[in-house]
Amino acid sequence: MAWRRGKLTAILLIFEVVFIVLFGILVVYDDQANATATQNSLTPAQGGADADNNVLRAYYPMFQDVHVMMFIGFGFLMTFLKKYGFGSVGFNFLVAAFVLQWATLMSGFLHLHHGKIVVDITTLLTSDFAAAAVLISMGAVLGKVSHVQLIIMAFVEIIFFSINEWVGLTFFKAVDVGGSMFVHAFGAYFGLAVARVLYREDMVGHSKEGSVYHSDIFAMIGTVFLWLFWPSFNAALAPGDDQHRAVINTYFSLAACAVVTFAISSAVEKDGKVNMVHVQNATLAGGVAIGTSADMMVHPWGALLIGSIAAVLSVVGYSYITPFMADKLKIHDTCGVHNLHGMPGVLAGIIGAIVAAVASPAQYGNSVYQIFPARAPIENSTELATIQAAFPAIEAGNGRSAGLQAGFQMAALIVSVLVALVTGALTGLLLRLPIWDHPEKDSMYEDEDYWEIPEEEAVDMNGSL
Amino acid sequence: MAWRRGKLTAILLIFEVVFIVLFGILVVYDDQANATATQNSLTPAQGGADADNNVLRAYYPMFQDVHVMMFIGFGFLMTFLKKYGFGSVGFNFLVAAFVLQWATLMSGFLHLHHGKIVVDITTLLTSDFAAAAVLISMGAVLGKVSHVQLIIMAFVEIIFFSINEWVGLTFFKAVDVGGSMFVHAFGAYFGLAVARVLYREDMVGHSKEGSVYHSDIFAMIGTVFLWLFWPSFNAALAPGDDQHRAVINTYFSLAACAVVTFAISSAVEKDGKVNMVHVQNATLAGGVAIGTSADMMVHPWGALLIGSIAAVLSVVGYSYITPFMADKLKIHDTCGVHNLHGMPGVLAGIIGAIVAAVASPAQYGNSVYQIFPARAPIENSTELATIQAAFPAIEAGNGRSAGLQAGFQMAALIVSVLVALVTGALTGLLLRLPIWDHPEKDSMYEDEDYWEIPEEEAVDMNGSL
Amino acid sequence: MAWRRGKLTAILLIFEVVFIVLFGILVVYDDQANATATQNSLTPAQGGADADNNVLRAYYPMFQDVHVMMFIGFGFLMTFLKKYGFGSVGFNFLVAAFVLQWATLMSGFLHLHHGKIVVDITTLLTSDFAAAAVLISMGAVLGKVSHVQLIIMAFVEIIFFSINEWVGLTFFKAVDVGGSMFVHAFGAYFGLAVARVLYREDMVGHSKEGSVYHSDIFAMIGTVFLWLFWPSFNAALAPGDDQHRAVINTYFSLAACAVVTFAISSAVEKDGKVNMVHVQNATLAGGVAIGTSADMMVHPWGALLIGSIAAVLSVVGYSYITPFMADKLKIHDTCGVHNLHGMPGVLAGIIGAIVAAVASPAQYGNSVYQIFPARAPIENSTELATIQAAFPAIEAGNGRSAGLQAGFQMAALIVSVLVALVTGALTGLLLRLPIWDHPEKDSMYEDEDYWEIPEEEAVDMNGSL
Repeated sequence: MAWRRGKLTAILLIFEVVFIVLFGILVVYDDQANATATQNSLTPAQGGADADNNVLRAYYPMFQDVHVMMFIGFGFLMTFLKKYGFGSVGFNFLVAAFVLQWATLMSGFLHLHHGKIVVDITTLLTSDFAAAAVLISMGAVLGKVSHVQLIIMAFVEIIFFSINEWVGLTFFKAVDVGGSMFVHAFGAYFGLAVARVLYREDMVGHSKEGSVYHSDIFAMIGTVFLWLFWPSFNAALAPGDDQHRAVINTYFSLAACAVVTFAISSAVEKDGKVNMVHVQNATLAGGVAIGTSADMMVHPWGALLIGSIAAVLSVVGYSYITPFMADKLKIHDTCGVHNLHGMPGVLAGIIGAIVAAVASPAQYGNSVYQIFPARAPIENSTELATIQAAFPAIEAGNGRSAGLQAGFQMAALIVSVLVALVTGALTGLLLRLPIWDHPEKDSMYEDEDYWEIPEEEAVDMNGSL
Repeated sequence: MAWRRGKLTAILLIFEVVFIVLFGILVVYDDQANATATQNSLTPAQGGADADNNVLRAYYPMFQDVHVMMFIGFGFLMTFLKKYGFGSVGFNFLVAAFVLQWATLMSGFLHLHHGKIVVDITTLLTSDFAAAAVLISMGAVLGKVSHVQLIIMAFVEIIFFSINEWVGLTFFKAVDVGGSMFVHAFGAYFGLAVARVLYREDMVGHSKEGSVYHSDIFAMIGTVFLWLFWPSFNAALAPGDDQHRAVINTYFSLAACAVVTFAISSAVEKDGKVNMVHVQNATLAGGVAIGTSADMMVHPWGALLIGSIAAVLSVVGYSYITPFMADKLKIHDTCGVHNLHGMPGVLAGIIGAIVAAVASPAQYGNSVYQIFPARAPIENSTELATIQAAFPAIEAGNGRSAGLQAGFQMAALIVSVLVALVTGALTGLLLRLPIWDHPEKDSMYEDEDYWEIPEEEAVDMNGSL
Repeated sequence: MAWRRGKLTAILLIFEVVFIVLFGILVVYDDQANATATQNSLTPAQGGADADNNVLRAYYPMFQDVHVMMFIGFGFLMTFLKKYGFGSVGFNFLVAAFVLQWATLMSGFLHLHHGKIVVDITTLLTSDFAAAAVLISMGAVLGKVSHVQLIIMAFVEIIFFSINEWVGLTFFKAVDVGGSMFVHAFGAYFGLAVARVLYREDMVGHSKEGSVYHSDIFAMIGTVFLWLFWPSFNAALAPGDDQHRAVINTYFSLAACAVVTFAISSAVEKDGKVNMVHVQNATLAGGVAIGTSADMMVHPWGALLIGSIAAVLSVVGYSYITPFMADKLKIHDTCGVHNLHGMPGVLAGIIGAIVAAVASPAQYGNSVYQIFPARAPIENSTELATIQAAFPAIEAGNGRSAGLQAGFQMAALIVSVLVALVTGALTGLLLRLPIWDHPEKDSMYEDEDYWEIPEEEAVDMNGSL
């Protein structure tokens, strides 16, 4: 145990020192946050920036919503385990804080500006999105790995996450405003692959893997904040009317998803009761399922339909697919991320491709070239000149047809899932190295080995108050 | 019980299918969220919309605060019941998600634009307000009705809520920026009327109707978020300086209300102790009581006074009026909504009328015609021309005097309470139909009948951790 | 006990009546919230205010974040005590609501405008900051004083807090954007001085001073919301790029602080386990430590380093300094505010002075005169004219050098700590007067004496659900 102490401390301090050094070499403030930038010492009339319209203000409210989702949302959602509450909210906190720094670097390596990593409110936001991927993967292995394993997983996952997203956005020019393919599907299948490789029979049917009454209520804090702020997650990076539409679509998808989750939960459970696991998780699937197409013209009725389908898929997943995967495929998924993020993420990608396939200038106007930049005509074409005359915001693209864009959307989805599965499996092999202190059966789903636990619990619970 | 399963599932799925169909026929995006609208494919210089100033941004922070109030605020406030935590936060979630969709339609029917229901961030917000009315009513019957009854109640209530509000705003031209008359008083008296009709003696003094230590702390999550975000609730729909003033007034009213609640609670309780029920609820009465006049010139001292009076009224209500109503009037009010929303809502309406009666152009300038649109001079009058020359935002009104406006404020209050009582009573009769599975005594205030409950609770609580 | 009842009620009602009277005499709306102001009845073209750009909108999102920090953050952070949950979240609520009103007056007395106290969204915000100081002090004496003592402490503390801050900002012209010196260090050392004077041996090693499993999870609600919204606390009052930078710096400082807290906690605890007390508190020290310099050019690597140092300092404080202070110095610090606010606040002040000492126009451009107003050249100097020609926002200052500004920063820090210690000690003496019902040993760290407690707890916990 003394050995373990050294490990967590050493690993975290080494990483933190490396982060500080790399930040010192590479990371600089964006001009909008940099006192050295001349624009911040001049008035607008003299070519300076308008202090009242700093880009911070445009993003900050939605950024904070997403921030709450990562640390309160995911953190409390996982407290449903009766004896793993400290680990759920605490390791979620540790892992996310670790990723905020590491993702700033990894994403920055792929988007260097004159050899520097430039940070502003949008990079803080995208680092939070990257944290989501890791926290989703964490849900698949919750209670079955040590804190050291979680940190190693987070470190490795962010490398592949960043590259996969970069490939999808830069080469495939796929669009995914809410990150359903690049964040949710990637995080889920990465975590499931790790779980498959780490599988041991004693992980399944474990006596400590379950909730108690009040731990389920703690979990609802996470669920409800995730549900409430999901419109911010899906809309934060979209501009103008696209952002407005993404909020509306996500709001309605989630509303329908919540209602249908109760309907289907009651249908699949014995005695027609409602299952808290479904309410805690499947109600959120509508946020994932609309993610790729949130800024597209799915219309309010389409949003309701997408949310409804996601609810059915997710509840059925919890009731039938998760047990099947644990029994037959040796994939044990503690939080059921396959049902909340995996399948709904794939559904989102497919919906995104379908909507892309039917997106036309007739319906979107010139916005179609803003939402799908690769559909804009190629550089120096007369088509581009015509469009830019009306709407200069459009940049030269690849002149893709709607169908071709849809194909690239599907390609990005398939590649994301495959990369997640392969790199997740490799990460699982890495995590099997004995040096990471993989927990034994008795230490699973329990805080005891990792946390100082208050001693008086038993006395108190039986005592007079 | 298998019968019940079918019911919840069937009712929710039927409603959801109807919602999708009606949305498909009727609901369209507002131009500010619609890619098809030409303005979103042009630059501002060419007559397009300014993407950086989409209306979404003006409303979104306060919208999200209100959203949190509905789902976290009301949801956790009701978790005080020791054995009904799942139902409190879970059915609150279900009912609110249901209402977001249904209120979009009902309110839309009354405000059709060229035969269509147009949605944008302001309609998402007003649907959340509508949810508040139903969640307040739910508080009166909490633990005493089935989930199916809650859905039926929500469906019926939204019809009458929408019509009542529409009448009050359109015909009476009463103003109620924080919805104290149209949301709080309506929701409370509707719920109390339902509770009266559903009254059975075994509902009162029930052994499960009470809190435990940690359920009271869960409830405080709801209380504090409601208290914090109430300024957003009262100010979200007001413009400019009115909005600023509504925030200030609500902040001070609530601060005074919290202090006075502790003072009076300690005065009315034996031994001078403070009662958690008062802290959870009466501290919020100041938000209700200032609601109608939040954007008026009540001045900061007036806000403190209103909040103080509301606290006294509410604590006295919990200590003396609620037991009286249960014993003598056969109205059992689980959450005491009469004390938090009913009486403070009536108080708010009366204060609103008084402040309207003394509102003069000398104090408000031309704003008096903005806050009370019916006081603006009639169309084509020279008075109107003079005002519009200085402040074109003013539209033609009814030329009402201050006193006449005050009269219409009182009329709107009285009508709201009466409509709520009558339609609530009728809804109560509907809910007494045996098909809705009205719970028996043993099923009241308890999750057992409606939720899969973790089995190991007893063992765990007596166990070593 | 009946005597106590009278006291709380009487004290609160007397204060509230005095507040209402003083508000009536002194407090008026700012023009941006005042219907009487002519600007709000004219269009912008006629010299009126732009309703779409009311100052409320610029501050409101960060204001609400800070508001959540005060009532949810501090309130739930203190619920870690197993038998003092009602008092933690409830008295936090009472004290903060009391301070919002009293700080509006006290701060207003020091900043009168034509004999009036003018309130707007920025004064609501600074009243919340003032509440922070008192809530920090409350952490030092939590569970050891009566509610009446808390109110008296809050009343007295706000007087000295306001004067100290006013002296520091007005005479020393020290800058402290995140309030680490004037709020955190002041609040901590004030509370510690009170705790020293109130010290009794029976306060230490008390059987009820500890957590249980679920009370530690409740406390994490407070921790995580404080951690998430701290960037708003540090940035709310800064303009333009300074605000943007303050958000970035605080975000990274906190991220590093969280990671290093886990590393050091595991290093100092036996068996290498992580201690929940550290996670609940030391993770936040990075927000305090960067507070004074949050808007300065510390660079992202500097923010990581500051957060890392703060974590080490804070964890070491909890493990070694707090026990030492309790045993040897007779200072018992219930929440360890010395480790979360005291030492990190002093560290923040020192860092602020160092960064001020090296701040040059070469790095900051003319912003250096905006961040450190006393460094601007004196009135009527040619240097000032040159600067104002480029950046009219700069006002005449004292022509201080970087070194002199650093000296004044250190002076403000030292004075803040000394004033806090002296006035805190005097307040402690006042609180020892027998009329305030100082609790006996059996009443400490327990709600029983102050709150109506649900009776069925014991039965329920041992019962079947």
